[in-house]
Amino acid sequence: MVRKSFHYFHPVLLIPVLLLLSVTVISSCGTDSDHYSPVTEKGIPETTEQKAFAIALHGGAGVISKDIDPETRDGYLNALDHALRIGYELLDAGGTSLDAVEAVVRYLEDDERFNAGKGAVFTSEERHELDASIMDGRDLNAGAVAGIRTVKNPITMARKIMEESRHVLLSGDGAENFASLMDLERVDNSYFNTERRREQLHRAQERASAGNSGTVGVAALDRHGNLAAGTSTGGMTNKMPGRIGDSPLIGAGTYADNNSCAVSATGHGEKFIRNAVAYQICAIMEYTGVSLQEAAEQVIFGKLDEGDGGIIAVDRYGRIAMVFSSPGMFRGAADSEGRFEVAIW
Amino acid sequence: MVRKSFHYFHPVLLIPVLLLLSVTVISSCGTDSDHYSPVTEKGIPETTEQKAFAIALHGGAGVISKDIDPETRDGYLNALDHALRIGYELLDAGGTSLDAVEAVVRYLEDDERFNAGKGAVFTSEERHELDASIMDGRDLNAGAVAGIRTVKNPITMARKIMEESRHVLLSGDGAENFASLMDLERVDNSYFNTERRREQLHRAQERASAGNSGTVGVAALDRHGNLAAGTSTGGMTNKMPGRIGDSPLIGAGTYADNNSCAVSATGHGEKFIRNAVAYQICAIMEYTGVSLQEAAEQVIFGKLDEGDGGIIAVDRYGRIAMVFSSPGMFRGAADSEGRFEVAIW
Repeated sequence: MVRKSFHYFHPVLLIPVLLLLSVTVISSCGTDSDHYSPVTEKGIPETTEQKAFAIALHGGAGVISKDIDPETRDGYLNALDHALRIGYELLDAGGTSLDAVEAVVRYLEDDERFNAGKGAVFTSEERHELDASIMDGRDLNAGAVAGIRTVKNPITMARKIMEESRHVLLSGDGAENFASLMDLERVDNSYFNTERRREQLHRAQERASAGNSGTVGVAALDRHGNLAAGTSTGGMTNKMPGRIGDSPLIGAGTYADNNSCAVSATGHGEKFIRNAVAYQICAIMEYTGVSLQEAAEQVIFGKLDEGDGGIIAVDRYGRIAMVFSSPGMFRGAADSEGRFEVAIW
Repeated sequence: MVRKSFHYFHPVLLIPVLLLLSVTVISSCGTDSDHYSPVTEKGIPETTEQKAFAIALHGGAGVISKDIDPETRDGYLNALDHALRIGYELLDAGGTSLDAVEAVVRYLEDDERFNAGKGAVFTSEERHELDASIMDGRDLNAGAVAGIRTVKNPITMARKIMEESRHVLLSGDGAENFASLMDLERVDNSYFNTERRREQLHRAQERASAGNSGTVGVAALDRHGNLAAGTSTGGMTNKMPGRIGDSPLIGAGTYADNNSCAVSATGHGEKFIRNAVAYQICAIMEYTGVSLQEAAEQVIFGKLDEGDGGIIAVDRYGRIAMVFSSPGMFRGAADSEGRFEVAIW
């Protein structure tokens, strides 16, 4: 797929682009003719102009009914908007992509709408086991935690593991011990109890099924040219205790490499693990030279099945891809050129 | 290392970039070759002739002294030879690559020379936490277990997770519970105690260090054209409890895809996770069309540092690669054309 390049991009040109963008977003919200309509960023003309910074976030992909009441919808959009603003302002002020990823994920973890931190789903044993990972595209340094039960903000624990331990991934009791060594805010496991998630569990148990939606993730490019990505989740509703999905797995749910891109994934975790989704997108960019958008579409539409989920990603030029094959994905994108938008469908 | 990811630049911009790149590549090649001589299978003429079946195994990479006494050396070589024969005979008789991988890994797990199963190293708390993974190249199905403490053969547990659960990766207590549901041979954690590993732990604790050698892994192509790979380990000596290395992580320590190859890795687990080593080799084959040998060398010598470890791999033609940057790697290779060899250095 060859895309037209605009090398001399005067800021005034942004106006029609942004107008077009709003129309695209609004019209895609309105139409529901097909079984599903893969929303990609195809409407946005890609440029090779280097953006000073860029950030994309997601709050999970899945079957999100368009019939949700306006108040609920606006609550989500406002939460995404607020989260995006935190990252935007941090990056605009010269902050690092790593700090932006951590700060935005923390905000989403503290908002019980999302299946991460406070809003984490229940395991089959009616408890909570949280997973998170973070990766620094400068040096491929990474940290991750799986099955943590008492840390209020798992993304911060993932960063501590990256920076303060010699390991990448800690799980279970060992992770709890490490959390005790670090200065991390702890909570009782019941802090993560919410009525909405308990009802979801009971519905899932009745159907003997498991569902996953509301995982959160962020990818960012900072003014220093560094990429970072992070993902946080409560996992699948009704999951077997000890189950580790893609979110804490470097290469599956999260990957960042300054040579290619930063990715955070959300969806059917097992499929994402088996296809090494986050890393595969980076590998396609690195090894075949296609754009981020093209690489992400190859994986989400070519390797996964319809409805499996999606990704948000940022490349080293600050281009953003938000690609998903599920009916909706809570998401937001902003960059130094004035783009700032949130969407669900 | 030629990167093709500059398509979005104006062609003129490529010139300084490529110049800079060549200088970097040339200078890094120069320093590498001064320091060590990579042992690869370059001496073996590569053909694209389809072999009916092929198998490669490893028993860990690391600093293996050439001064070990002949009896110890022969003990290792005999164990590798015996393990390889099990796989060879199974594949020759028309068995599946998945069965060959499981059977050979089980044999190595039961031999206390290797850091997997019986010979697993000690954690910093003087206990054992074992990791394993297995992957089927036909359909990318996969199973893995991390931090299991009472299952005699973790590779069989990984296969049970692949075949009997809806998850890919189970860890800790949840994995113990799942093991209880399945018909798996259980042992007390003290079954894995060996004097040699206890001495290694004490030496590591004196130096406040951690070492990893003796992980085992197998990759195989069967007469039906299917690839499979599996890896099993006790992890790093003196590891923090809860630490998960690359061995149980699909994409890091193990990967298999009929479209490209089957890989099992061994070495400095954290580096292998951060570079998605097993999957990256498959991705390079799939997306750039180079041979397995070339893809493996690009990753082991181009992406990792000297001494980090190595991989064994088999591609869909039955070609075998055994590439490592450490002084030695216990390994073996056999195929339907009469190749049958084991080696250490």
